[in-house]
Amino acid sequence: MLVAIPLFDRFTALDAVGPYEVLCRLPGTEIVFVGEKTGPVRTDTGMLAITVDSHLDEIDAPDVGVVPGGPGTRAMLEPGALHAWIAKVHETTQWTTSVCTGSLILGAAGLLEGLDATTHWAAMGELAPLVGATTERRVVPQGKIVTAAGVSAGIDMALWLVAQIAGDDMARAIQLGIEYDPQPPFDAGSPAKAGPELVGLLRGLVTDPAPSQAG
Amino acid sequence: MLVAIPLFDRFTALDAVGPYEVLCRLPGTEIVFVGEKTGPVRTDTGMLAITVDSHLDEIDAPDVGVVPGGPGTRAMLEPGALHAWIAKVHETTQWTTSVCTGSLILGAAGLLEGLDATTHWAAMGELAPLVGATTERRVVPQGKIVTAAGVSAGIDMALWLVAQIAGDDMARAIQLGIEYDPQPPFDAGSPAKAGPELVGLLRGLVTDPAPSQAG
Repeated sequence: MLVAIPLFDRFTALDAVGPYEVLCRLPGTEIVFVGEKTGPVRTDTGMLAITVDSHLDEIDAPDVGVVPGGPGTRAMLEPGALHAWIAKVHETTQWTTSVCTGSLILGAAGLLEGLDATTHWAAMGELAPLVGATTERRVVPQGKIVTAAGVSAGIDMALWLVAQIAGDDMARAIQLGIEYDPQPPFDAGSPAKAGPELVGLLRGLVTDPAPSQAG
Repeated sequence: MLVAIPLFDRFTALDAVGPYEVLCRLPGTEIVFVGEKTGPVRTDTGMLAITVDSHLDEIDAPDVGVVPGGPGTRAMLEPGALHAWIAKVHETTQWTTSVCTGSLILGAAGLLEGLDATTHWAAMGELAPLVGATTERRVVPQGKIVTAAGVSAGIDMALWLVAQIAGDDMARAIQLGIEYDPQPPFDAGSPAKAGPELVGLLRGLVTDPAPSQAG
């Protein structure tokens, strides 16, 4: 099985690496990081670079596509080369997926019309015009299209995907392999759980909270 | 605050990127990926490369060190340049930490003598001779040294660390930022929860389960 993960300037690292770390453990899976040009691509912070190994044109029939999000998605709301590639490979994928604001790219490529879809909680307003209905569910399958919520939700989405592809026990074994027995020291991972004061604190950390914090 | 994350051949991506994604959101934090040589370093799968931006010699006084694990740690049980660097920077760090089998490197550098420490569940036997006592706790602080369990545990460890450095509300706000409201579709993230059959399935996925799956 071939999994393609497109990278672009100012993507959010964990959006891409979470699903990678799950899917790479599925036997027989090859993962390739693709982009408009090969070489290192910097994340939203500028402090991490992941290498794009293949040009978009080289990978024309992946079985699975995983589109990460990040502030860089806001520079790609007008259809371009990445959107054209996604629309093309989507014709033959088994699964076309996104994490966080990666769904804005799927939406701008026209893939989410009439569908339920999700994104980072802070970007729901941007996603709304591109989809049938936004939802706050963490993993949202609609046929072969699956959107996931913000950043860390890609791990949950990828485990769900492994279960569809190779069965529940394979997903459980991979969960065990990455020792994904989450024990966050706090319970503040959604706006409802965090409450308005923490939402305000988070927004105050950055001048423009949606692009910089939404991932 | 300067955070240094050393990379080496065949590290596990999420071990490094989980803590990166949390710590980069702490205002005033700079994260630098360091190594014995600069340029792209491949993970354990060979399918992902992260760029080392600074040579070890260039970063001699980080406030925080985060040592990831991976199969590559087994090639580094004899002290070398990375161990010497860790022992040296540890003299002045505020926190010296590891994820997964990164604790084998801390141990081989002599930092864990007499201390409680953890690692990936499949590597406890390898860690035992290097520490006071192994423990299955997910995040194990011992003074300014903190070891974390396998792969995904680095996210929990980094949130704990943010709380120590900048307070609980900052950690909660960052948890909200990465929407870390984990909802894995299964509950199989530890050997006790997964049971012996799934442990066997995981070990069967690879010829040599500890190096390849332990991360």
